[in-house]
Amino acid sequence: MTETFQFKLLATDGKARRGEVSMPRGVIRTPAFMPVGTVGTVKAMYLDQVRDLGADIILGNTYHLMLRPGPERVARLGGLHELIRWPHPILTDSGGFQVMSLSGLRKLDEQGVTFKSHIDGALHHMSPERSIEIQGLLDSDIQMQLDECVALPASPKEIERAMEMSLRWAERCRVAFGDQPGKAMFGIVQGGDISHLRVRSAEALAGMNLKGYAIGGLAVGEPQEVMLDMIDTTVPHMPAGKPRYLMGVGTPDDIIKSVARGIDMFDCVMPTRSGRHGLAFTRRGRINLRNARHAEDMRPLDEESSCPAARDYSRAYLHHLIRANESLGGMLLTWNNLSYYQDLMAGIRKAIDEGRFADIMAETQENWARGDLAPL
Amino acid sequence: MTETFQFKLLATDGKARRGEVSMPRGVIRTPAFMPVGTVGTVKAMYLDQVRDLGADIILGNTYHLMLRPGPERVARLGGLHELIRWPHPILTDSGGFQVMSLSGLRKLDEQGVTFKSHIDGALHHMSPERSIEIQGLLDSDIQMQLDECVALPASPKEIERAMEMSLRWAERCRVAFGDQPGKAMFGIVQGGDISHLRVRSAEALAGMNLKGYAIGGLAVGEPQEVMLDMIDTTVPHMPAGKPRYLMGVGTPDDIIKSVARGIDMFDCVMPTRSGRHGLAFTRRGRINLRNARHAEDMRPLDEESSCPAARDYSRAYLHHLIRANESLGGMLLTWNNLSYYQDLMAGIRKAIDEGRFADIMAETQENWARGDLAPL
Repeated sequence: MTETFQFKLLATDGKARRGEVSMPRGVIRTPAFMPVGTVGTVKAMYLDQVRDLGADIILGNTYHLMLRPGPERVARLGGLHELIRWPHPILTDSGGFQVMSLSGLRKLDEQGVTFKSHIDGALHHMSPERSIEIQGLLDSDIQMQLDECVALPASPKEIERAMEMSLRWAERCRVAFGDQPGKAMFGIVQGGDISHLRVRSAEALAGMNLKGYAIGGLAVGEPQEVMLDMIDTTVPHMPAGKPRYLMGVGTPDDIIKSVARGIDMFDCVMPTRSGRHGLAFTRRGRINLRNARHAEDMRPLDEESSCPAARDYSRAYLHHLIRANESLGGMLLTWNNLSYYQDLMAGIRKAIDEGRFADIMAETQENWARGDLAPL
Repeated sequence: MTETFQFKLLATDGKARRGEVSMPRGVIRTPAFMPVGTVGTVKAMYLDQVRDLGADIILGNTYHLMLRPGPERVARLGGLHELIRWPHPILTDSGGFQVMSLSGLRKLDEQGVTFKSHIDGALHHMSPERSIEIQGLLDSDIQMQLDECVALPASPKEIERAMEMSLRWAERCRVAFGDQPGKAMFGIVQGGDISHLRVRSAEALAGMNLKGYAIGGLAVGEPQEVMLDMIDTTVPHMPAGKPRYLMGVGTPDDIIKSVARGIDMFDCVMPTRSGRHGLAFTRRGRINLRNARHAEDMRPLDEESSCPAARDYSRAYLHHLIRANESLGGMLLTWNNLSYYQDLMAGIRKAIDEGRFADIMAETQENWARGDLAPL
């Protein structure tokens, strides 16, 4: 770790990059997957387990945390790291995405957003400055600008308007964040599925000389192809010396293909949320534990995994737990899934280090395509 | 552990007893608390944690397991121990209590009970013989007779009828269980709140020379005083050389007072169920983490506990997790509560060993009465 926020590019292999984000609270080995800790907890996991699986950083949701327990309270309690017992880096989103997807959005204009809490219906206002203030109260290490994320499909005019306003908000967030050497504020490239708007957004943000850049507004319902196209379009306009973060993405396949296009950081609820619903990610692809074929299958999910959830528990037991809605089912499958995601990232990092990324990517995809063990 | 099921009385202190139940799968140090593993899982816990807290035995619910995953399936999978990864002793109840409390009971007569599953409404029949057959398919180490548990208050005639039928069912279960040296079938004393019926039940069961005896039909809504009276009445008629199990009890106070009256084994959903609802058991009594007084209290539940959930997590965080309905809240409070219960039992056993049970009991109760830390 370092006194100041830094990014070091250690190796490249094609467009894939191996790097290190370093800051006072720790080092993030990239490409990195950040487990989502929505309300100050990675659901159904002890944070010690999350750490042991190899997570260098977790994500917190500003929207959820501002409603409960509230940023001023978190600050009085010593910050989010202290409250949740995670002394390592934390990235917080700006709250904008959840305001639009979860809350009763009441008004959005140049000043910011006014919305109704999904918990108690109370009205809240969030400006770009307030979003940064909240993230500061949480003591977040990597803070995100407030942006407006448009759901696709949308009209070019609407996409452009939101993107241009997001740029103005980025500048306001930059000013509000000020000079904090040990922390970072990232800008977010918007522009929907329109190439020239993505380029315009990326270039304008690059001009602000931020410490890192994210691509937002993807994986919001469009085909994977469109997402990959937009990454291909955008990445060349993002500074090579700064970390690149693809927000809210994705499946293991999304991730490996995005690494191949030069992305360094990812977050997604998929491993945790899917786990609670009975879906396991493995090196043989996805396995739906609800399926009757597992009911009397005493084989583990993956006998070669180093994760106890994957290696030591039978599919029959996991099937039973998921069918009976027992919390241990979600605990074990979340554990398995986060383990799989972190192992995938570790494998990707090693492959880039060794200059074998394309081979490892092909091999990994072949294993997924070959699919699960034959039923008993 | 021993080849055959055995009970050894190691020490007494007043009426309190210190003993060991020994069988091929392990030794149960008594007085013992058995965490409840309803559907093949102690809710919100990894069984490795349950073991590490000092549990020698857990309880499984025949009613739940017969509906899902089903006894024949469990048997095909190698038995309950194999399925759930708990190689130590398991006690199963007979299913009668849940049939009466959870299912749509359709008919109860001398032959047994016909009931509707609370899951899918399917009709099931359970006779005393079938209950023992199911418990055998589960490979349970300590099996319970099928009995009829009458909700109090009830008429003396009704209580007597149910108690007499339970005695006839005990005999049928004894015959069905047969000769299994490494396992045990326990009889259950019934008789409601009527002393002479309790005595009649205990004596008739003693005449069957079973390997252990339970007191059932208590802690079903009656005042603690009535429960303790019934224990005082019943225990002298239970064989001193056999383990005595008080079913479904109870609070730490119920347990310590029942140990003082000669009870050896307990089970209860209280530590697990209350934990999921925000209640913590500690040496300073019960603490309701939902209470606003904990919202900014960074002190742990008990800084002297050896359990990480009690020692390392702040009340403020627990409060937040419970308020936000996050599963980690239930995971941590269940962990704390089972730890507290097992520590309580370990303290009780040590006190009896050292002939200081009355002192330790008084001290423990004083600590509860003194209550929690003053608010900040």
